[in-house]
Amino acid sequence: MINHIPARSGASFKLKKDQRLLVYNPEGKQVSDMILINEHDINEKLSSGKTFDYEESILITKGNYIWSNRSNRMAYIVEDTCGRNDFLLAPCDSKTFAHFYDSHDPSPSCLGNLSHELQKYGIHKDAIPTAFNLFMHVDIAAQGSLRVLPPKAKAGDYIEFKAEMDLIVALTACSAKDSNGGSFKSITYEVLR
Amino acid sequence: MINHIPARSGASFKLKKDQRLLVYNPEGKQVSDMILINEHDINEKLSSGKTFDYEESILITKGNYIWSNRSNRMAYIVEDTCGRNDFLLAPCDSKTFAHFYDSHDPSPSCLGNLSHELQKYGIHKDAIPTAFNLFMHVDIAAQGSLRVLPPKAKAGDYIEFKAEMDLIVALTACSAKDSNGGSFKSITYEVLR
Repeated sequence: MINHIPARSGASFKLKKDQRLLVYNPEGKQVSDMILINEHDINEKLSSGKTFDYEESILITKGNYIWSNRSNRMAYIVEDTCGRNDFLLAPCDSKTFAHFYDSHDPSPSCLGNLSHELQKYGIHKDAIPTAFNLFMHVDIAAQGSLRVLPPKAKAGDYIEFKAEMDLIVALTACSAKDSNGGSFKSITYEVLR
Repeated sequence: MINHIPARSGASFKLKKDQRLLVYNPEGKQVSDMILINEHDINEKLSSGKTFDYEESILITKGNYIWSNRSNRMAYIVEDTCGRNDFLLAPCDSKTFAHFYDSHDPSPSCLGNLSHELQKYGIHKDAIPTAFNLFMHVDIAAQGSLRVLPPKAKAGDYIEFKAEMDLIVALTACSAKDSNGGSFKSITYEVLR
């Protein structure tokens, strides 16, 4: 069953060990922030720092694992038809909108949407770490400076994950203008049981 | 007063808003992992993701701020005589030693030392995020792959911070062999009141 995440919103669900998750970019050029939590202990969660450690790379794609703060494998990336994701930047929130866009409109943000989803499982907003940002294109210059570019993802690109433990998954259709090539689109996903 | 952190150990202390903290590399080529926590609310802590967002760089040095998970400035880097630090990799722990060095000796790790220090303030090990790794030299290749190199820091190099809020600070003298050029040395620090 294909599930839709409307523009600027989020979703959450459980993914059992060995189940596959496909996250699609139906229209292209849209980012999706992902948080993974151990279903049986919400204090274990994905960690960019541990993932960079064990994968020895900051560009995480097909063939890489997502690791937890306790050094356990949480998910394996089976396929990634786009190939460019980000695991450096924190989820967008109302404060980043104010800082970068001088925008004070109360539109939903990824952090707000992730927090709304994860509070159903008892996870507090402050406990949400840096998300794995599917399809996000952050250019890293030689001197380390970062630039957020439009996603390279075309309509139909997808990423397939295999769960390495029982997981709570939260996903968004990202709400930051610059991250999504200037327009807000939906994300779809499918759990293969 | 100069405080010593013996090789492979840690320390913690409070740093009030506007106080300066100097962290010295007395012998050179030694990493120090740093965690910053809001003294008045332990759920607010340093965030690599938010720091990369607002500083628009992954190489954090003189002139940069360290930001919190709530998008507040925690500390400003006033001086950095070495100029090369890391904010990508998670603190070393017994599992990273087993993975990278096939070492199962029960030597202290940065995560162990940070956890020991921070539990005095009620902070659980699972809540320790990616540390700001002072003097750590992680090479980032064009395709994103990472290599841990010996620190560029020479004996006497130091980093000076100004606190932007009341802080709990935890610091280590890092325990990972490859991160410190193959030998374990001390770190010293001084709080200017």
